[in-house]
Amino acid sequence: MNQPNPANPEPCPVARSAGIVADRWSLLIVRDAFDGVRRFSDFQRSLGIARNILSDRLHRLLDAGILAMQAGSGGGAHQEYVLTAKGRSLFPVVVALRQWGEHYLFGEGEAHSELVETKTGKPLRAMLPLADDGHAISADETEVRKLRPAEAPQER
Amino acid sequence: MNQPNPANPEPCPVARSAGIVADRWSLLIVRDAFDGVRRFSDFQRSLGIARNILSDRLHRLLDAGILAMQAGSGGGAHQEYVLTAKGRSLFPVVVALRQWGEHYLFGEGEAHSELVETKTGKPLRAMLPLADDGHAISADETEVRKLRPAEAPQER
Repeated sequence: MNQPNPANPEPCPVARSAGIVADRWSLLIVRDAFDGVRRFSDFQRSLGIARNILSDRLHRLLDAGILAMQAGSGGGAHQEYVLTAKGRSLFPVVVALRQWGEHYLFGEGEAHSELVETKTGKPLRAMLPLADDGHAISADETEVRKLRPAEAPQER
Repeated sequence: MNQPNPANPEPCPVARSAGIVADRWSLLIVRDAFDGVRRFSDFQRSLGIARNILSDRLHRLLDAGILAMQAGSGGGAHQEYVLTAKGRSLFPVVVALRQWGEHYLFGEGEAHSELVETKTGKPLRAMLPLADDGHAISADETEVRKLRPAEAPQER
């Protein structure tokens, strides 16, 4: 990893993403939002989370542009929290976490919720990183190309 | 989300995964391990992290079976931290985080490191959730099938 500097503190996209979404409550709020949860009280009930922590995480997700507020669908005065396009683009992250958990974190025969295609009722395929030509690729076949100085003039 | 209970505290795989890897330092340690970092001092230098925090996160990753310790490759007395099969299976999670970050967290023209196929030097394809028949599927086309009581007898 390159040294941080004020103009370009973090050239690694994994680190920038992790700085925003690598938080258990934030991820579970995003998961619930994908499942259609929109109201503060519904997030609270779903997650069993303290009001102040929920409020903090919702504000962070709003600040990050992952959630947006809109008028409640029922016509009442309450506000709702909905995923933006940026937030909806976290779907692969949530699916990747789900599939890893399904494979490694449940005992044999231990039941878990399933993500299925609504139309067919079938579970999704395992999501794998793909090379440019479309074949599934393992970490061993990849490397991280760090920034060259010419591409990152601010770096020391 | 279902209510937690002692026998089956969390039936959602996203939540179980998030409980383990939704931590910024843990994810960056896993990222560095994919990049070949193995020694305590090298993680410390790469991450600029306090020793006690690094030690805590490494132990959590060992406890979770994501990392394992092995004798140092140089023949010295030091131990190395390497990804297990379970840890290597986090590759799609890391790639999904990277691709989301590349798309949303960098300004236009702002340089970032790139994950490429070693053989070709080409960046990976965007990783998308796929339906059972192989077509790319959006969150709107999916639903979470919760556990039925018969599948989760411990639930209230």
